[in-house]
Amino acid sequence: MGEHKVVSAALIIIGNEILSGRTKDANLQFLGEHLNDMGIRIRECRIVPDIEDMIVETVNYCRATYDYVFTTGGIGPTHDDITAAAVAKAFDTPLERHPEAEAMLLAKYKPGDVTPARMKMADIPFGASLLTNPVSTAPGFRLENVFVMAGVPRIMQSMFKEYAHELVGGAKVLSASVTSHVPEGTIGMRLGEIQDNFPDADVGSYPFWNDGKPGTNLIVRHPDRDVVNAACDEIVQMIKDFGGTPVDDKRPE
Amino acid sequence: MGEHKVVSAALIIIGNEILSGRTKDANLQFLGEHLNDMGIRIRECRIVPDIEDMIVETVNYCRATYDYVFTTGGIGPTHDDITAAAVAKAFDTPLERHPEAEAMLLAKYKPGDVTPARMKMADIPFGASLLTNPVSTAPGFRLENVFVMAGVPRIMQSMFKEYAHELVGGAKVLSASVTSHVPEGTIGMRLGEIQDNFPDADVGSYPFWNDGKPGTNLIVRHPDRDVVNAACDEIVQMIKDFGGTPVDDKRPE
Repeated sequence: MGEHKVVSAALIIIGNEILSGRTKDANLQFLGEHLNDMGIRIRECRIVPDIEDMIVETVNYCRATYDYVFTTGGIGPTHDDITAAAVAKAFDTPLERHPEAEAMLLAKYKPGDVTPARMKMADIPFGASLLTNPVSTAPGFRLENVFVMAGVPRIMQSMFKEYAHELVGGAKVLSASVTSHVPEGTIGMRLGEIQDNFPDADVGSYPFWNDGKPGTNLIVRHPDRDVVNAACDEIVQMIKDFGGTPVDDKRPE
Repeated sequence: MGEHKVVSAALIIIGNEILSGRTKDANLQFLGEHLNDMGIRIRECRIVPDIEDMIVETVNYCRATYDYVFTTGGIGPTHDDITAAAVAKAFDTPLERHPEAEAMLLAKYKPGDVTPARMKMADIPFGASLLTNPVSTAPGFRLENVFVMAGVPRIMQSMFKEYAHELVGGAKVLSASVTSHVPEGTIGMRLGEIQDNFPDADVGSYPFWNDGKPGTNLIVRHPDRDVVNAACDEIVQMIKDFGGTPVDDKRPE
């Protein structure tokens, strides 16, 4: 990206229910879009089951490899919520009752509802700072470059919005999209040449079928508006050269 | 699982568009459910960008670790479709024009539509067998325990259905679900005891809110119907002990 630093991130989605197909993840799409707006690009996403060793290994690999690591899932009150314990193990730090988290939970629940299971949600790896949960109180936490969030999308999103200002992003990647009914197989080679002309840009090709009629949605992504526009201009010319017409041409605002 | 062998699998989803949030993956859910019905359990899913080294590394890790590996995405005609080349590299085998794939593509396209980009879709790692694509002809392929499929869900599903009979599954994991309005924080500890009573079963707890009213969907998964039913019976008793009523109780058929 030359002078356009893009900050990297990994997302770790924790939960058997995602891998079994019971639950469809919605957090990757939300975080992919919101982080991109801040110049932070998700380079990898790993979906792992509720197995401590796998979570520990995955957290340790990702935190050493990427600028930021986000996890979703596994911070509730039941026996299959093992993310906090696993992250503590990954950092080789004890899991301890966090006084501030404990106070928040005690303030939320009526005395009869204060159960050991609920209070387990105040057990946080030593040294972590809390991530506020405006929806259901039980906090997430941040430890170095790792942000641990709830899996329920509404809660995850509310947590993210609370701490997003803490993240140090890079150049926002701008995106443009040119759509036509010229199929991928026609433009393939020529599009590769356009990618070669703009080696730092991401030129992506996504086929579609409208009522069986093929078409292609071409995406250009780069932090510099001029680069994005220049690549798109070449794409528009290519479409015309193949006898087509861009039916949609969305440039960065 | 004792005598109930469960075969393991990994899914590798390839494509920048999934990580950026542009496209929402639909293949994990389909494969999670369909493989589970065959006694094959997805143990891990990795979503990686269109970067050759990452695909090579991920394929090699997964094929050494799991019984089966499935990949989706990156087998089209454009420059960003690099999955076949990356898998060839992972297996240290050449990428070659496959005569059968070539014949299928030549039969599909009118002579004027036979472009180098389209014929690139006939370049398959040496030694691989083709996976038929009933929707758009361009085949996937199988190399040892790795199955390489298209990313477009309709095409991926049609490919999968063509070769699914080749997969050797294990015991089908049966699933039951008991729903009540007793919240997770109330049942948490007791549910953990039920998990301990059935250590080979997966007991999962998934909270929900209906009009702000909390509830919990409890899932039991195990290949043996009797184990699933016995664990569910304990869950129903637990719900009653906490003053609740199961509002839904779905057992294996």
